[in-house]
Amino acid sequence: MAGTQEQRTRALRADAQQNVERILEAAISCLGTNPEASMAEIAKAAGVGRVTLYGHFPSREVLVEAALTRLLERGEEALRGIDLTGDPRDVLAALIESSWLLTAQAGSVLVAAQALLPPGRVHEMHAEPERRLIDLIRRGQSEGVFRKDLSAAWLANVVHYLMKGAAADVSAGRLDRSEVPNLIAATMDGVVQPRFT
Amino acid sequence: MAGTQEQRTRALRADAQQNVERILEAAISCLGTNPEASMAEIAKAAGVGRVTLYGHFPSREVLVEAALTRLLERGEEALRGIDLTGDPRDVLAALIESSWLLTAQAGSVLVAAQALLPPGRVHEMHAEPERRLIDLIRRGQSEGVFRKDLSAAWLANVVHYLMKGAAADVSAGRLDRSEVPNLIAATMDGVVQPRFT
Repeated sequence: MAGTQEQRTRALRADAQQNVERILEAAISCLGTNPEASMAEIAKAAGVGRVTLYGHFPSREVLVEAALTRLLERGEEALRGIDLTGDPRDVLAALIESSWLLTAQAGSVLVAAQALLPPGRVHEMHAEPERRLIDLIRRGQSEGVFRKDLSAAWLANVVHYLMKGAAADVSAGRLDRSEVPNLIAATMDGVVQPRFT
Repeated sequence: MAGTQEQRTRALRADAQQNVERILEAAISCLGTNPEASMAEIAKAAGVGRVTLYGHFPSREVLVEAALTRLLERGEEALRGIDLTGDPRDVLAALIESSWLLTAQAGSVLVAAQALLPPGRVHEMHAEPERRLIDLIRRGQSEGVFRKDLSAAWLANVVHYLMKGAAADVSAGRLDRSEVPNLIAATMDGVVQPRFT
């Protein structure tokens, strides 16, 4: 083999990085279909051996957390593209649309993560999008376009409950995936409306 | 032992019925704390032997379905006490309050049932309360007090999503159980409000 030691090291690192990418993609895809997908199935789908798989991800727990982290990073990218400064009602609808795509894709990976990771870990991993949503709701409340008699934390919970519930009904074939973002946005529109009673 | 054959048979039947009751109560209580509670733990909590337990409930699946059926029957009793003929907004709040008590108690039994029973079975078992809720929403829509631009089926879904989501947050210690019925009722009040846009 030609090349210096440094070149060889670099090539090995690139190989390793490529394997990590393939394993993560395979994990997202396998767990996305079946939250109980085994390490062996994921290795097979990634086209790597068991030794390579366990070399990068020593346990199923580590791999599931890494797959979910990857999905959340992707979601973050999509969400960063949203202008957060407009009318809070429009921004909320845009956040719902982007988050829904992620939730729908992450659904079954989330099930795997919730079954495997320590309690509260999945919730912690959502801290950043959660903060963004709560900040938006607080702004809407202070601008008088969102109701104030319910806390921003609860109103953010409602967004999550609707997404999770709809994702479960889509998986069970009881709801059409493409209708969901509009249904949730129209529902939240009512939820956040100031109450004059 | 004194008594006729008929008296003895009757006593045996009463014993068997009492065992069934104790097993169901134990199952509701054990599964309510831990959705993965084993048959052995449930037998122990009921104070019956394995033979008696399996004599009445030949598998964990049969027992989990029976425990959920019992909880739903109890919920039905509570719901039957509600006057369904008043202002749909008040009836909805009353339905939410009663259903919440059931959901909070059934939470972890539902998790066990969803993991164990065939897909769709848990949903089927809710057909009766579901029909009642949808009928109420349709009446509210036809009387003009509930919005019509979202289907009664979706609005009923929203009630379930809120209950399930809140139940999960209560289990995780992120939400105070006693606040939930009011939070959900206030939220639904906004959800169903007719939209003038």
